[in-house]
Amino acid sequence: MRITLQELAQRLNAQLEGDAKTLITGVSSIEFAQGGDVVFAESLRFLRLAERCPASAVIVWRDAPSINKPLLRVDSPREAFLKVLELFAPPPHHPQGISPSAIVSADAYLAEGVAVGAGCVIEAGACIGRGTVVYPLCYVGRDVQIGEDCILYPHVTLMQGVRLGNRVIVHPGSVIGSDGFGYVCVNGEHRKVPHLGTVEVGDDVEIGANVCIDRAKTGVTRIGSGTKIDNLVHIAHNVQVGEGCLLIAQVGIAGSSRLGRSVVLAGQVGVSHRVTIGDGAVVAAQSGVAGNLAGGQRYFGSPAREHMKQLRLMAYTSRLPELFERVKAIERQLRSPGEEENG
Amino acid sequence: MRITLQELAQRLNAQLEGDAKTLITGVSSIEFAQGGDVVFAESLRFLRLAERCPASAVIVWRDAPSINKPLLRVDSPREAFLKVLELFAPPPHHPQGISPSAIVSADAYLAEGVAVGAGCVIEAGACIGRGTVVYPLCYVGRDVQIGEDCILYPHVTLMQGVRLGNRVIVHPGSVIGSDGFGYVCVNGEHRKVPHLGTVEVGDDVEIGANVCIDRAKTGVTRIGSGTKIDNLVHIAHNVQVGEGCLLIAQVGIAGSSRLGRSVVLAGQVGVSHRVTIGDGAVVAAQSGVAGNLAGGQRYFGSPAREHMKQLRLMAYTSRLPELFERVKAIERQLRSPGEEENG
Amino acid sequence: MRITLQELAQRLNAQLEGDAKTLITGVSSIEFAQGGDVVFAESLRFLRLAERCPASAVIVWRDAPSINKPLLRVDSPREAFLKVLELFAPPPHHPQGISPSAIVSADAYLAEGVAVGAGCVIEAGACIGRGTVVYPLCYVGRDVQIGEDCILYPHVTLMQGVRLGNRVIVHPGSVIGSDGFGYVCVNGEHRKVPHLGTVEVGDDVEIGANVCIDRAKTGVTRIGSGTKIDNLVHIAHNVQVGEGCLLIAQVGIAGSSRLGRSVVLAGQVGVSHRVTIGDGAVVAAQSGVAGNLAGGQRYFGSPAREHMKQLRLMAYTSRLPELFERVKAIERQLRSPGEEENG
Repeated sequence: MRITLQELAQRLNAQLEGDAKTLITGVSSIEFAQGGDVVFAESLRFLRLAERCPASAVIVWRDAPSINKPLLRVDSPREAFLKVLELFAPPPHHPQGISPSAIVSADAYLAEGVAVGAGCVIEAGACIGRGTVVYPLCYVGRDVQIGEDCILYPHVTLMQGVRLGNRVIVHPGSVIGSDGFGYVCVNGEHRKVPHLGTVEVGDDVEIGANVCIDRAKTGVTRIGSGTKIDNLVHIAHNVQVGEGCLLIAQVGIAGSSRLGRSVVLAGQVGVSHRVTIGDGAVVAAQSGVAGNLAGGQRYFGSPAREHMKQLRLMAYTSRLPELFERVKAIERQLRSPGEEENG
Repeated sequence: MRITLQELAQRLNAQLEGDAKTLITGVSSIEFAQGGDVVFAESLRFLRLAERCPASAVIVWRDAPSINKPLLRVDSPREAFLKVLELFAPPPHHPQGISPSAIVSADAYLAEGVAVGAGCVIEAGACIGRGTVVYPLCYVGRDVQIGEDCILYPHVTLMQGVRLGNRVIVHPGSVIGSDGFGYVCVNGEHRKVPHLGTVEVGDDVEIGANVCIDRAKTGVTRIGSGTKIDNLVHIAHNVQVGEGCLLIAQVGIAGSSRLGRSVVLAGQVGVSHRVTIGDGAVVAAQSGVAGNLAGGQRYFGSPAREHMKQLRLMAYTSRLPELFERVKAIERQLRSPGEEENG
Repeated sequence: MRITLQELAQRLNAQLEGDAKTLITGVSSIEFAQGGDVVFAESLRFLRLAERCPASAVIVWRDAPSINKPLLRVDSPREAFLKVLELFAPPPHHPQGISPSAIVSADAYLAEGVAVGAGCVIEAGACIGRGTVVYPLCYVGRDVQIGEDCILYPHVTLMQGVRLGNRVIVHPGSVIGSDGFGYVCVNGEHRKVPHLGTVEVGDDVEIGANVCIDRAKTGVTRIGSGTKIDNLVHIAHNVQVGEGCLLIAQVGIAGSSRLGRSVVLAGQVGVSHRVTIGDGAVVAAQSGVAGNLAGGQRYFGSPAREHMKQLRLMAYTSRLPELFERVKAIERQLRSPGEEENG
């Protein structure tokens, strides 16, 4: 891919400052930039870094100061950079057609244009929509329904009856629809609760690598449309995740909890069972959510508190040595002179 | 499945209150209930919720108050509900027979009635007991021993020499018997310690999805009978887990630690190496266990403390802003009037 | 394997104390030792335990006190024990040759002596170095480069273009090169950022089971030579891990963070994005690293602080009930007698 700065400016609807004939041959973050690359900066700090890196041009905001490099001025540098990434992305080399080594049940239904990679196993009753790509070594259980234009990367497991919407991406090693962790203690023995429910994943959901989403005991474990899930996340039985949520790596959500729309759980957050988290709530990394959280606010800590309150508590905690000193000084002052002499 | 309330009452040994001819067509938790479903309630709070849901009948405790719905009165609503779930559970569609696409060593021993799914690889010396089902795409290493009536779901890996008891269930993507994390630092280089031991899993153990259980350096990493392990749990080399334990999702246990019988570790708990946890200890979510814990108690926090003590500390911590204010007020009061005027 | 103590002493360059004809038939940790085993002790405490265990001989430091058992005196008991483990390790039963059931692209390049197990899928352009062993059911994507003498255990996924050095070991279920978690919010929708970069893993790296290492957005996610990674670790896009690091189980490192050489992150540590951790820093279990950490020091806590400082804060925190009492006593003392009578 080679493109002149002029051509790139036209594609991005950008105002060009500098040599229009500059050849752009790649796209990069500032830290890995080489000559020929275009990078982006959305703050003065990154503009300074961009100026010193070997990149050949920088995408910047409309009224960014000029630097010693060609600039592409746009309304949203981040959005323009995304367009450039897509422009330079090589066409994906997905598997094509049905591999002769895939084991596809005669009772599975594959729409036109479905690709099934080598070594896959597709069970009876499975139904896969148009344009969906199944990479090698995936397992698609009985009666699983997969929408259109989905991508299952290698080693994905979809257990019996799971349903995925359209344009869902599942990264390698993820498991959807395994039994939840449910036992009833009878005479000191843990007896397994049968899991009759399933998992339903909406449209445009992306699921990272080695994620686990358990089926419901009865009813449905649900992942709302547009939600994105990072690697190694655990979602227990009967959890309801709203639309447009972001669940960062290693988050764990216990049984029957409910997340509203656009909830963000940062890395390693744990959510207790039967908790409700309101629309747009943002929970900082490693927090522990044990009770309901109202929407539209930021939370932090274990137990999770309103974010600023937690920061204040942490600041006070770090001043504990000082507080102990102050109390000691007061006690000394209050002691009678006689005591003081003896102490 | 369709059954009259009368018939259901007989099967549960329940006292029926309401129309005996009511048709029950399903079973559900209260929140997903539809008409025709039976639900259960074991407290007044859930009884009120059950009354307002569309379910057709409710399983309740013997002297629960009457509501505007048919009731099935039993000694243990939870146990009765478990029976109903099993009644309504569809017969499982496990793989049957040995798939022609499975690669089974001529030197493996498969008992009668063993099922091996498509694409599985079973190595020499492996020994699989009667009635065990191996789902597609599993790997069973050399000399692995699997008892009777076990289920291995897809993509399970059992490394060389691992031993499973009877009625063990392993969910997709779990790995049993990989090398532990052991190095000896020699001249600044981490040299790998060979792992000559193995993993032994007792009877009636259930292991969630994407769990990792490492083999011992020498000797055995052991999972006691009746223990249940949730998704994404890590169990390091030489760990000894007693019988009937519950290890909730994302728990991590470092090398050589020992859990007694019926220990419960809630989600995301971390246990340091060479720690001993006594019988029946319960550790709350996200706690960090760095030292030995006596049995029969509840623990919480990082470091894990006696549960009530930790709650008290957390309550005091949340009152730190107030304490700082109080100390400041005392200091102000103790200052001489002259100082006060100048300050 | 049977060897006299005399012969073992010669191989270890050890000073033998006791019956030279003693037969050694195994190697063990003290807790699992049986008759015929050799164990090691590098402190008095373990020497006492070794004395009481059934082992037939103990490897000890040069001037260790004599006990009621044959001793092998060496400069480094730990290093000598490692040699014994290697001596007693059975030769590994790796797959050999190219399995007829593996699906290897005609456009993949496999050097001499490469083994590819049953059911593997190797895509076009993949390049595998001499002596490397690929266990069954692995997926090696397009243009992946694997060095010499590597081991990929079952169910490993290497996505397109990933590069591994020499002598790299990857345990079952690990995923290298899946897309990172990157979205740009456009009109309230999370739009996926294409990931054009890759992952580069140095020489002598060992990667545990069910680990996830994401490819870079642009550029490279890098794992330095000699680094060892435990089970269930998450490494996000564009992270740079230096040489000789140890990342213990369930660690998570967010995007673009950089670890220097010989950094140790203990179990369940979380590292925020764009953080730099200096050479030789050691971070204790469950800590949360939100800002840069200087090298050569120990850290603990969430947020991670200098280790001793965190221990001191934790000690003060555990004394909070006492501090509240003391402040209350002071307030009582300061109250006027009249107030006291009324209160």
